[in-house]
Amino acid sequence: MQPNPIITLTTDFGVKDPFVGIMKGIMLNINPSVNIVDITHNISPQNIMEAAITIGMSFEYFPHKTIHVVVVDPGVGSIRRPIIVLTDYYCFIGPDNGVFSQIYNVKHEILLVTHITSEHYFIKESSTFHGRDIFAPVAAWLSKGIDIIKFGDLITDYVSIPIPSPTVSERNIIEGEVIYIDRFGNAITNIKTQKIEDLYGNNPQGRLKVIVKGKEMPVKNHYSETEGKGLYSLINSFDCLELFVYRGSASSDFGITIGEKVSVVFA
Amino acid sequence: MQPNPIITLTTDFGVKDPFVGIMKGIMLNINPSVNIVDITHNISPQNIMEAAITIGMSFEYFPHKTIHVVVVDPGVGSIRRPIIVLTDYYCFIGPDNGVFSQIYNVKHEILLVTHITSEHYFIKESSTFHGRDIFAPVAAWLSKGIDIIKFGDLITDYVSIPIPSPTVSERNIIEGEVIYIDRFGNAITNIKTQKIEDLYGNNPQGRLKVIVKGKEMPVKNHYSETEGKGLYSLINSFDCLELFVYRGSASSDFGITIGEKVSVVFA
Amino acid sequence: MQPNPIITLTTDFGVKDPFVGIMKGIMLNINPSVNIVDITHNISPQNIMEAAITIGMSFEYFPHKTIHVVVVDPGVGSIRRPIIVLTDYYCFIGPDNGVFSQIYNVKHEILLVTHITSEHYFIKESSTFHGRDIFAPVAAWLSKGIDIIKFGDLITDYVSIPIPSPTVSERNIIEGEVIYIDRFGNAITNIKTQKIEDLYGNNPQGRLKVIVKGKEMPVKNHYSETEGKGLYSLINSFDCLELFVYRGSASSDFGITIGEKVSVVFA
Repeated sequence: MQPNPIITLTTDFGVKDPFVGIMKGIMLNINPSVNIVDITHNISPQNIMEAAITIGMSFEYFPHKTIHVVVVDPGVGSIRRPIIVLTDYYCFIGPDNGVFSQIYNVKHEILLVTHITSEHYFIKESSTFHGRDIFAPVAAWLSKGIDIIKFGDLITDYVSIPIPSPTVSERNIIEGEVIYIDRFGNAITNIKTQKIEDLYGNNPQGRLKVIVKGKEMPVKNHYSETEGKGLYSLINSFDCLELFVYRGSASSDFGITIGEKVSVVFA
Repeated sequence: MQPNPIITLTTDFGVKDPFVGIMKGIMLNINPSVNIVDITHNISPQNIMEAAITIGMSFEYFPHKTIHVVVVDPGVGSIRRPIIVLTDYYCFIGPDNGVFSQIYNVKHEILLVTHITSEHYFIKESSTFHGRDIFAPVAAWLSKGIDIIKFGDLITDYVSIPIPSPTVSERNIIEGEVIYIDRFGNAITNIKTQKIEDLYGNNPQGRLKVIVKGKEMPVKNHYSETEGKGLYSLINSFDCLELFVYRGSASSDFGITIGEKVSVVFA
Repeated sequence: MQPNPIITLTTDFGVKDPFVGIMKGIMLNINPSVNIVDITHNISPQNIMEAAITIGMSFEYFPHKTIHVVVVDPGVGSIRRPIIVLTDYYCFIGPDNGVFSQIYNVKHEILLVTHITSEHYFIKESSTFHGRDIFAPVAAWLSKGIDIIKFGDLITDYVSIPIPSPTVSERNIIEGEVIYIDRFGNAITNIKTQKIEDLYGNNPQGRLKVIVKGKEMPVKNHYSETEGKGLYSLINSFDCLELFVYRGSASSDFGITIGEKVSVVFA
């Protein structure tokens, strides 16, 4: 038996209002066998960058053919376009405002972007709730096997927003920054293992110095390997350098916020 | 193949305690093929009006035959009755305290209300958690096709609470009020497009004046059509007049709360 | 047709970050027919006791064979062991740090605990996110019928944390305490009906005195049976003595917190 198609949702709609439930109702109307999975509905309101980073962290953990819907959409109803992004293994649906920037930044064999214009797949034409009226029904129709090309024309001038990426100084110092703070107050940077190993070779861990706010921080292997409530770093489960406080919060205990500069030196 | 029956949940149980999960466990015990969809669990504690408005906004977006369970129930264990409401296309289950007032306000061909008394469909008799002990199992049994009449006798004296509705003054001014604030701080009023068009004819948008706190507010087509951080209005995706601040909050930036008076004048 | 296997999730991951969604993606990759139910993701960060009480309140309401995953895991990546707990009707997966203490406290015919070591069931070896890398995939493989014994060796020295239990004084006074505060501010104690009836006989309700902060509190049958905003008690739907304020909060109105002493006297 064919497994049920999966649609994920990533929005800034929150979980108090009925907006997410309504989107699910619409999708189940069109395709009763769809399996809808919430990634999050608590993207900070209208924060396109946070949405881009969140879906970028998540999409590859889902089965191939999963349809990822992202609705963080301050320009809803204006001329910004609704789009479908098709890659080798996944499909993405949302507004063309940069929420898929991390998807474009990954190498794919296939990368097709369609401007959704076929109104007969829409619920109705509202100008304030395209999650319900366009993105949910288009996702459900796609999950039934309707070809991406039926929804509109291919475009190549889709919008990408700059996600900060680390630089390497003349003295071989990696200079990155914090791009995400999680629930535990852990501060995830944009410095990836790959970058560190490209520069310093494999397993450089013992000789790395991580510098934040002018101070050097020890590099650990896991959270509980520390003493006291100091600020430490490790390579996290997404292969990113992360700042943390064991049983505390790097964010609130040390005032680390998005954009905080972090340097890595090879000693 | 028959699609799986859908049960939605709208409660004030929050998402910290295990109460919602327990209700789902009970339902899956009785009917393993049920598809349970959360509308919200963050109704303000014991706020019957908010529950009534939320389910009123949501129920019609779900497939026909969906069973909507609403548990906001300050009188649990007292003499207030548990009921099933059957309409043309949907079924509702919850306490008889007014949470279904918006359902009664809509025109239906069929409207049957049953007082649930058949205890053999209950889990056990507790006096503090009818979500688990009555509403969840009754919803699951209904989803298996048990006839509504098996659960108890029909009643006609079910409870309806007054939901504020707009009035029209002698000088043809519509006087309504804010009845819901969403996550973005948008303030939704009880003034519907239908009301405006009944009074002023179709497409009156260009000649409408919306007045709040003694000031006139421009009427826009969508959120991003505005300049600066002013207070604006539009007809939202639920066909209601709504006050908003683009990339801001009508609620916190302008102190708009539930009950704020809003007038519409035809110029 | 076999019903879909059920996996529940109880974590402290919150609902803002994509961690829970990622776990679901992993599980659906391995077993597309699994039915995943959230119990809660809002356990207070790293609060093992709260996790233990929450899963203890919830597990029995799910169908037999349900797999309960609990991830509250401050020691992730250290030497604490990942385990599977098999009882007569349920299976539990999580870290061996005491989150299953309430399961061990219940009488079972069968109680087998396995130390999970078979790395070929893991996604990859990270040291910060075993929810994704160990617990989610092991749960999904278990749901496909892989035998518990395939995942590692049986152990008997699993970790149990002391959950406070009430004592009985020489003068037959039950002395217990508050162990859980729910969303409504209701304060649930560790004093169970069984304990009260063992000591004072059946239906002793009319002659019980409940004493908190040196004051006697009336015992009621349900929430709305009270007058004013006083502090009252009742036997709740989990057969525990509970302190409450009708349409108020025992916690914030009367400063009741976890650990508050509560005595029961038979008059």
